Amino acid sequence: MTARRVTLADVAWRAGVSKTAASFVLNGRDHMRIAAGTRQRVLEATAELGYRPNRIARSLRSDTTHTIGFISDTIATSQFAGDMIRGALDEASDHSYVLFIVEAREDTAIGQAMIEGMLDRRVDGVIYAAMSTRRVALPTALRDCPVVLLNCLAEDPSPPTIVPDEFNAGRDAARLLIEAGHDDGIYVVGGCHRTGRTPEGVYAGWERMRGIQQVMREAGLRLAGVRECAWHSPRHGYREVRALIAAGHRPQALICCNDRLAMGAYQAVGEAGQTVGGDVSVVSFDNSGLAGWLRPTLTSIALPHYELGRSAVRALLGGGGTAGFTSIPMPAVIRDSVRGPVRRSAWSNTVLLR
Amino acid sequence: MTARRVTLADVAWRAGVSKTAASFVLNGRDHMRIAAGTRQRVLEATAELGYRPNRIARSLRSDTTHTIGFISDTIATSQFAGDMIRGALDEASDHSYVLFIVEAREDTAIGQAMIEGMLDRRVDGVIYAAMSTRRVALPTALRDCPVVLLNCLAEDPSPPTIVPDEFNAGRDAARLLIEAGHDDGIYVVGGCHRTGRTPEGVYAGWERMRGIQQVMREAGLRLAGVRECAWHSPRHGYREVRALIAAGHRPQALICCNDRLAMGAYQAVGEAGQTVGGDVSVVSFDNSGLAGWLRPTLTSIALPHYELGRSAVRALLGGGGTAGFTSIPMPAVIRDSVRGPVRRSAWSNTVLLR
Repeated sequence: MTARRVTLADVAWRAGVSKTAASFVLNGRDHMRIAAGTRQRVLEATAELGYRPNRIARSLRSDTTHTIGFISDTIATSQFAGDMIRGALDEASDHSYVLFIVEAREDTAIGQAMIEGMLDRRVDGVIYAAMSTRRVALPTALRDCPVVLLNCLAEDPSPPTIVPDEFNAGRDAARLLIEAGHDDGIYVVGGCHRTGRTPEGVYAGWERMRGIQQVMREAGLRLAGVRECAWHSPRHGYREVRALIAAGHRPQALICCNDRLAMGAYQAVGEAGQTVGGDVSVVSFDNSGLAGWLRPTLTSIALPHYELGRSAVRALLGGGGTAGFTSIPMPAVIRDSVRGPVRRSAWSNTVLLR
Repeated sequence: MTARRVTLADVAWRAGVSKTAASFVLNGRDHMRIAAGTRQRVLEATAELGYRPNRIARSLRSDTTHTIGFISDTIATSQFAGDMIRGALDEASDHSYVLFIVEAREDTAIGQAMIEGMLDRRVDGVIYAAMSTRRVALPTALRDCPVVLLNCLAEDPSPPTIVPDEFNAGRDAARLLIEAGHDDGIYVVGGCHRTGRTPEGVYAGWERMRGIQQVMREAGLRLAGVRECAWHSPRHGYREVRALIAAGHRPQALICCNDRLAMGAYQAVGEAGQTVGGDVSVVSFDNSGLAGWLRPTLTSIALPHYELGRSAVRALLGGGGTAGFTSIPMPAVIRDSVRGPVRRSAWSNTVLLR
């Protein structure tokens, strides 16, 4: 620093009061003891000089740092991380808190050191976030600190937990197709994601499948098939849909478990000389950037990342009264990939029409 | 907190030394004054009890918080933010620093308040980052603090600045096409991005165009045309290439200013019954996820976000000796969208072949 920092003494001098009086005003301990005129002069001097109290020193007295730790398993690999963090930032900012964001890769010494480094700086509470919904083992370093789980699940006893409502998202995907007139040849691409490193499948996959199957049963229908595959690249969606068509099947509608799989499905449908939205309806999940970029644009049930982030901060600052499990609705974003008219009336307020 | 925090007194008691001796050891002020055996016992007791020094109190004495502020204009809207932040986290972690990440939307009261909130917590220095390279007005609150600019430019006098080497990226894009045998019908899609809110164009656009034009001149060639358009959606690339073909032009090669524009170019080329990589070569910039998802896969000059983040932290921790302008190389990632063979020998070490 080159410029001298404005101190409490400067403020007191400008206001014509003692340092103790100025300190009382600025620490909110001035009720009854300080005259209104004095208080006013201190606040004016603070504003004029651009004085900022030294929060580090103050936190030793007031036992709060107005800082929330945001621990994420991986900031980099998800395109959605930003929205979740932005939601958390906005809610924190509404309450004059700031976020201290740390990427702690699970089960690593570095991750552990990062978490401890954050606790050393005395955060008031911690949001522990995963970028795709999954079960986590809460680091032991966080055992004694107020914690909210964001987009992840822990074993009992669990802290307050904020997750997307994947089950109703699955229901909505199936309802969209049925209401568009589909009653046959409906396939799911992706399924529970029971592949590779996650043989048991992913939370989003299970919940979405459960919702889809329930709606199909309620309508007296059956899925024509479920193509289990990995979710991370359009390549997987492409392969599955190409194989389906090559085997002589004639899919009428595809429920793709994310927009990347839908992109691959588009590629395979196009190569087979068919059109999405005409010959084959496609509905998807996530509502990532891709959904608006594909031709025709893709109907997709949105992951509410921004609202997830906001809700987590709200739950943390709300204190202990918000224990349990909160599901955040996933709105359907309806575009041009499903054939036939969509009856807006059927969709109440959970659907955005773009 | 429910469990009592382990204190320095606990450590001293367990090690059988005075609190002063334990404090000297843990603050690194123990040379000559403390016996080696004592030092050893303190460190063992610290590990056994899981003691963590209170960094807030310590920072008042040692004048460093081992914390770096990372101020970003917008975390959410860029798919690349994560890589840049991850690079910064890794480099900070190598030096036992943690990052305090703040999103400060420019010219807003909230942004200002966020920055001041961060300075109040006494960061040792600040990285001021933009998610796409552009000119910024450095907030006055940062005037007296060590700052490194990441992916942005300020007026003189400017702090040390880290940006991608867009000029040589432009050169490489043009070289790739020329070496594949293209000498005619080469169009640029996107250009300087002289549209809408940025009539003067964007830094990346100008630098890439400068590099492209220089290589064309050196080879005695001329661009067949430059289609200026916005960069943010495939729709723009689609429209420009469709219009080009509809007007009777026969593009042989397209240099698209980012992968989204390239995605739109693919859509227009496909609709015209032509093939990318066969009838039309496409080379692009950014190397986002899209590049590997398109069919055929897309050759793209990568934005080195991870390395940008690392370099910024390195410049900040390196102190004042790194003033000036540092350009980080952008490696070409060669895939299947350019026709003809690529001679690896021509590309030395700046090219990844996947």
